[in-house]
Amino acid sequence: MRVHVGPEPAAELQDAVLAAGAELAPAAEATGLVWFGAGPERFAEYDHPGLEWVQLPAAGIEPWLAAGALREGITVTSAAGSYAETVAEHALGLMLAGARGLHQAARAERWDRPERARTLFGTTVGIVGAGGIGRALIGLLRPFGVRVLAINRSGRPVDGAERTWPAEDPDALGTLLERSDHVVVAAPATAATAALIDAAALARMKDDAWLINVARGSLVDTGALVEALDAGRIGGAALDVTDPEPLPDGHPLFGHPRALITPHSANPKPLLLPALARRVRDNVRRRLAGEPLIGVVDLEAGY
Amino acid sequence: MRVHVGPEPAAELQDAVLAAGAELAPAAEATGLVWFGAGPERFAEYDHPGLEWVQLPAAGIEPWLAAGALREGITVTSAAGSYAETVAEHALGLMLAGARGLHQAARAERWDRPERARTLFGTTVGIVGAGGIGRALIGLLRPFGVRVLAINRSGRPVDGAERTWPAEDPDALGTLLERSDHVVVAAPATAATAALIDAAALARMKDDAWLINVARGSLVDTGALVEALDAGRIGGAALDVTDPEPLPDGHPLFGHPRALITPHSANPKPLLLPALARRVRDNVRRRLAGEPLIGVVDLEAGY
Repeated sequence: MRVHVGPEPAAELQDAVLAAGAELAPAAEATGLVWFGAGPERFAEYDHPGLEWVQLPAAGIEPWLAAGALREGITVTSAAGSYAETVAEHALGLMLAGARGLHQAARAERWDRPERARTLFGTTVGIVGAGGIGRALIGLLRPFGVRVLAINRSGRPVDGAERTWPAEDPDALGTLLERSDHVVVAAPATAATAALIDAAALARMKDDAWLINVARGSLVDTGALVEALDAGRIGGAALDVTDPEPLPDGHPLFGHPRALITPHSANPKPLLLPALARRVRDNVRRRLAGEPLIGVVDLEAGY
Repeated sequence: MRVHVGPEPAAELQDAVLAAGAELAPAAEATGLVWFGAGPERFAEYDHPGLEWVQLPAAGIEPWLAAGALREGITVTSAAGSYAETVAEHALGLMLAGARGLHQAARAERWDRPERARTLFGTTVGIVGAGGIGRALIGLLRPFGVRVLAINRSGRPVDGAERTWPAEDPDALGTLLERSDHVVVAAPATAATAALIDAAALARMKDDAWLINVARGSLVDTGALVEALDAGRIGGAALDVTDPEPLPDGHPLFGHPRALITPHSANPKPLLLPALARRVRDNVRRRLAGEPLIGVVDLEAGY
């Protein structure tokens, strides 16, 4: 298979094409096109009758639909979901940091043994809002032999979860919180999820459990969380997102012995291109093997 | 299968027996014995003709051999290697902390974006001294699709490594250091490995690579490391072991923007019992399935 990377010939994406076993070719000779570095207004320059597949660089394809750039007869894939792994990796880092007290070790100026240490092996991980990030996290957690409890909108069983509840089940959240050693919040920010983790929810968590938020700050009641941390009612909290965001200078969560804050950096700009490169490599490999592509866009439906 | 846990009936080990599908029984009725909480001097109280298998709680079994407590006809398993996973988990936590700048985030008192962020996905991990900890780490890294380069004593290929060199190969270390994004030191402390990572070795590392040491402090030249970190010649260092150890109060590695120090806490006391419980669960399950046990002791050979 011959693939072109353009308009911008990003080396990382070209490497991904080659690593998957395809060849690089000029646009006019390529059956596959990995689009990067420009908007849909330039697509016509690259289209030709032999073009069969276009990989777009973003998850949302509204500008392409609005511009009417794509035509029938081309398979189009978006980058939807490709950044979930990046966020899941950050979540795993936060979980391990909490379990091993890395936040406290980082602050130490002397050789102090940590008060306690925990492991992820064999523990129970509750994922509140198990979509793409949750699925990616379950994949990273597989070697740890954890038990996964999940809540999602539909209640459709999440692969790798022992139990999946629909969000509308009134007992779901409390049950998940009571059983989990790590509670990972990865749900979308909606009216229904605002302050989902409030004082009552925190009270149902185990007293040594950690709360991880990689979704949106609005899902956690910050005041209630600070109280729970101060009182030692939960093990700790590692938050990549906060309410308010940014947290004001000197906020009690900064430097809190039971907290680790990262500044909304779970999916940072420098990692967007590597994530896209992984998706390109996957999809080129799948196309060569005749397997279904990831992120195929339905032009009629618009996503 | 009927298993007894004793002399101390540790609940965590009893749970592991039950989770694997066996029953708990008084010692006189058990075919399996999980030994915990006493030395070999009390073993005779628990031995009986129907006893077929004993799981010992430590990796070294010298006291048992010295006491002559074990007899022919019993399969004996030690806990050898069961703590490797605990250390590997810590190493993964240190790698992710370095990649995502968690050490700097932990110290921040304000919402500062990290200077850079890295991912483990698709990177190259070099393991210097790939024994039990290295193998366990490779297992944890599998979902990240990393390329693993390994050095061990024999040069016998390490499962999951793209390349394994014998330690005696004079080009091995330099080649591994030049290619690796993360260098994990997990080799034993011997005369041959003293200051293995010295100024010359550090100079061969990539300028954004991280050095992780979960072995012994003597393997890394601390002075040379501090110089390399100060000059920004490598990405950073995360060390669970140091030379000297403990590091003196106020040592420049504490709080260094490119360093994270944990106080020899990769395999802490509170995690010994969970690690043993995992081994018990594994071996009970294997025995029920008729599979080979892990850590079988050769009484003749003495290990």
